[in-house]
Amino acid sequence: MPVRVVLNQDEIPRQWYNIAADLPSPMQPPLGPDGNPISPDMLAPVFPMNLIEQEVSQERWIDIPEEVLEILYRWRPSPLLRATRLEKALGTPARIYYKNESVSPPGSHKPNTAVPQAWYNKQFGIEKLTTETGAGQWGSALSFAGALVGLEVKVYMVRISFDQKPFRKIMMETWGGTCIPSPSPNTQAGRAALEKDPDTPGSLGIAISEAIEEAVTDPSGKTRYSLGSVLNHVLLHQTIIGLEAKKQLEKIGENKVDVVIGCAGGGSNFAGLAFPFVLDKINGAEIDIIPVEPTSCPTMTRAPFAYDHGDTAKMTPLLPMHTLGHDFIPPPIHAGGLRYHGIAPLISQTIVEGLISPEAIPQLECYEAAVTFARTEGFVVAPETSHAVASAIREAKKAKEEGKEKVIIFNMSGHGLMDLVGYDKYFAGELVNHVLPEDEIQRALNAIEGLPKPEINKSGKW
Amino acid sequence: MPVRVVLNQDEIPRQWYNIAADLPSPMQPPLGPDGNPISPDMLAPVFPMNLIEQEVSQERWIDIPEEVLEILYRWRPSPLLRATRLEKALGTPARIYYKNESVSPPGSHKPNTAVPQAWYNKQFGIEKLTTETGAGQWGSALSFAGALVGLEVKVYMVRISFDQKPFRKIMMETWGGTCIPSPSPNTQAGRAALEKDPDTPGSLGIAISEAIEEAVTDPSGKTRYSLGSVLNHVLLHQTIIGLEAKKQLEKIGENKVDVVIGCAGGGSNFAGLAFPFVLDKINGAEIDIIPVEPTSCPTMTRAPFAYDHGDTAKMTPLLPMHTLGHDFIPPPIHAGGLRYHGIAPLISQTIVEGLISPEAIPQLECYEAAVTFARTEGFVVAPETSHAVASAIREAKKAKEEGKEKVIIFNMSGHGLMDLVGYDKYFAGELVNHVLPEDEIQRALNAIEGLPKPEINKSGKW
Repeated sequence: MPVRVVLNQDEIPRQWYNIAADLPSPMQPPLGPDGNPISPDMLAPVFPMNLIEQEVSQERWIDIPEEVLEILYRWRPSPLLRATRLEKALGTPARIYYKNESVSPPGSHKPNTAVPQAWYNKQFGIEKLTTETGAGQWGSALSFAGALVGLEVKVYMVRISFDQKPFRKIMMETWGGTCIPSPSPNTQAGRAALEKDPDTPGSLGIAISEAIEEAVTDPSGKTRYSLGSVLNHVLLHQTIIGLEAKKQLEKIGENKVDVVIGCAGGGSNFAGLAFPFVLDKINGAEIDIIPVEPTSCPTMTRAPFAYDHGDTAKMTPLLPMHTLGHDFIPPPIHAGGLRYHGIAPLISQTIVEGLISPEAIPQLECYEAAVTFARTEGFVVAPETSHAVASAIREAKKAKEEGKEKVIIFNMSGHGLMDLVGYDKYFAGELVNHVLPEDEIQRALNAIEGLPKPEINKSGKW
Repeated sequence: MPVRVVLNQDEIPRQWYNIAADLPSPMQPPLGPDGNPISPDMLAPVFPMNLIEQEVSQERWIDIPEEVLEILYRWRPSPLLRATRLEKALGTPARIYYKNESVSPPGSHKPNTAVPQAWYNKQFGIEKLTTETGAGQWGSALSFAGALVGLEVKVYMVRISFDQKPFRKIMMETWGGTCIPSPSPNTQAGRAALEKDPDTPGSLGIAISEAIEEAVTDPSGKTRYSLGSVLNHVLLHQTIIGLEAKKQLEKIGENKVDVVIGCAGGGSNFAGLAFPFVLDKINGAEIDIIPVEPTSCPTMTRAPFAYDHGDTAKMTPLLPMHTLGHDFIPPPIHAGGLRYHGIAPLISQTIVEGLISPEAIPQLECYEAAVTFARTEGFVVAPETSHAVASAIREAKKAKEEGKEKVIIFNMSGHGLMDLVGYDKYFAGELVNHVLPEDEIQRALNAIEGLPKPEINKSGKW
């Protein structure tokens, strides 16, 4: 019985899949401060033009550069595993598969986009990338990519995480990256925040503002900004996960998948696994495709599809997405990567089209699932990933009740070895579930009142 | 050009290689307190008989149980990678390969033996395993194996590590293991140590004594002790690494290996990669086989081959090995796994036979090599593993000087994500090299004066 399914280096997918080409109705364009669609040119101070082209591309398949593949080979194709031991523990007739993205050097799926982003920037003549990081996963991945591609990387890390997670900073420095706490005195945005409150714990919103400011104000013009999720080109780069998974399932004769699962904060690891299966669904296959979020930050399950800023400081264009409002601050749960007020526009659109079925799971069920997984399959997953595990277990139990031999696949987006504090608190009984009261959500949504509303089916040509 | 070489699940080696069958002269037996060879029976209170049989076996090939393989598939066969980016940075004509053992759930090679040890104990009717751990790598691996096989695991962790590395304890607990600081009030050995000094930082010697005491005094007879290195059966289980590597090299047409490298504390990861190549050398192949140790703990390069206890407390039988004396306390370097006063008897014997060529490398060169590796190949290796990387870089530079297209392979025994503090101190310039003065070594060797001396070529039949 196959437990482990691998692909040889020469079986790696050589193109990314761009779902924008196949969505039944066109994507709504991002809007500028004046409420009008922004042109690709307007993003040029922030991103290099070759990535902007990917951001707006309608091509179904986009070639992966050979030099990018040469780096990805260090951990890709990643293994597909069958959770035979978890299946047995659950007594389910379902066959559960998981794609192990924890084998990358930084330990998550993030380098799948960090490497091409660094490479395209380098090709475009850029010498330095700036970014922000919350829990540290993305800052580590971009530092790693910068080292291998040959780019300077500067990471603004939210001060409270910077203080609480010193190991993430050391990881970044080992790869030659620079990591500084945000707010910092380096930027206008940072200085303003510090003036307001010298002891501020910082926020992702401020860190994004600082990173963008440093990129766009570099007089040499050789600095750009890089984002680890949400945007179209980021999700595009992650589709290598699902494309590999399909080849692997085919290799062992699993020709029909019933359920596809990934956790979703900004949405990139979910989209990476799921979008190639969404294509099958668009073409008529019956598949349940489930992005999983925490009940404490129910963007997809309880928030409207609206135009909103990607950041708290309102520096980014307005993006069409499910959003709790840019002012929303989720309760402190341990899955830091899932604490985002919005979700990728491409995912929002697939929700609106009825192609995927979001689910929200409370924190304790996720940790319980993660511990079951660790003690059956052996892997200690990241707190974010635990949401996918919990959903897979729900689906496997459902299959048992229904007596159906379903095929379930989920994305094991990262290991939890850098985030063990959450497990410790779970064992100590210190964690709680957060389910947001409706009036709190309504209050948060005030932030988007007065902003333009997206219209589905309206032409979305940039 | 192949960068990544993988094996399918069905290509996994199905037998371990036992080098004891092929050593030119027989192994010297362990001795009891009376100076006479001990019989296998005498180890029965400590280890289950099926593992004792492996310990004394002279069979060349030993079957790997199907149920053990079924667990190993979670991360095995592990990838073989070619360090094309490191080669380029060094400008070497050598081709450098590394076996990535960091992909196991606990992040190192240790589970390769933890799983079969747990499985054989379970087969023998054992319900609980005790062990000690220094830096925490082995305690984590055994807890992981205990969870998957279904055995209780209790780990005595040296108190100073227990206090300094709280994350290791959380890892063990996530897998259901129990981790307590040693010395503890649970055992006579622990109570004695605490009475002597209530604030003692503990030592590996005391922790071993506590773990063995708990195993042998359990009135149910259902508890045994487990060791993560040094012993014959531990090295045997690790040979799956080298056997896989040989298949992988063959797959890409690398039919001649010139240099094989592994770091060596107790010696198991080195032996795991190297012993299958030592067999080739015994059969006439020309290969340099290099176990690498720190200059601060120069067991193989500067200590005699002698009979000595495996632990400070002198609870273990006398083992024939290169040893600095059981009282030797190495300077505090960050590669905790290489701070052992002895080295596996099987490795000692291959040194005596002239089959392998030990090397000692100082700490700073190792960290420098690890940083070069992280910034070219991308992987942040464990401080122990950095010794293998440093040696591989030495050999690659030598090949460049000689203008030779050598094939070098080393074992990347584990990642360093749980041990980033050493990198931080290296960057801060706080680390130093330790080269032991000769008189200090001589003083340490006083501990083995008066103990029996091993005679090579004397019959070693147990």
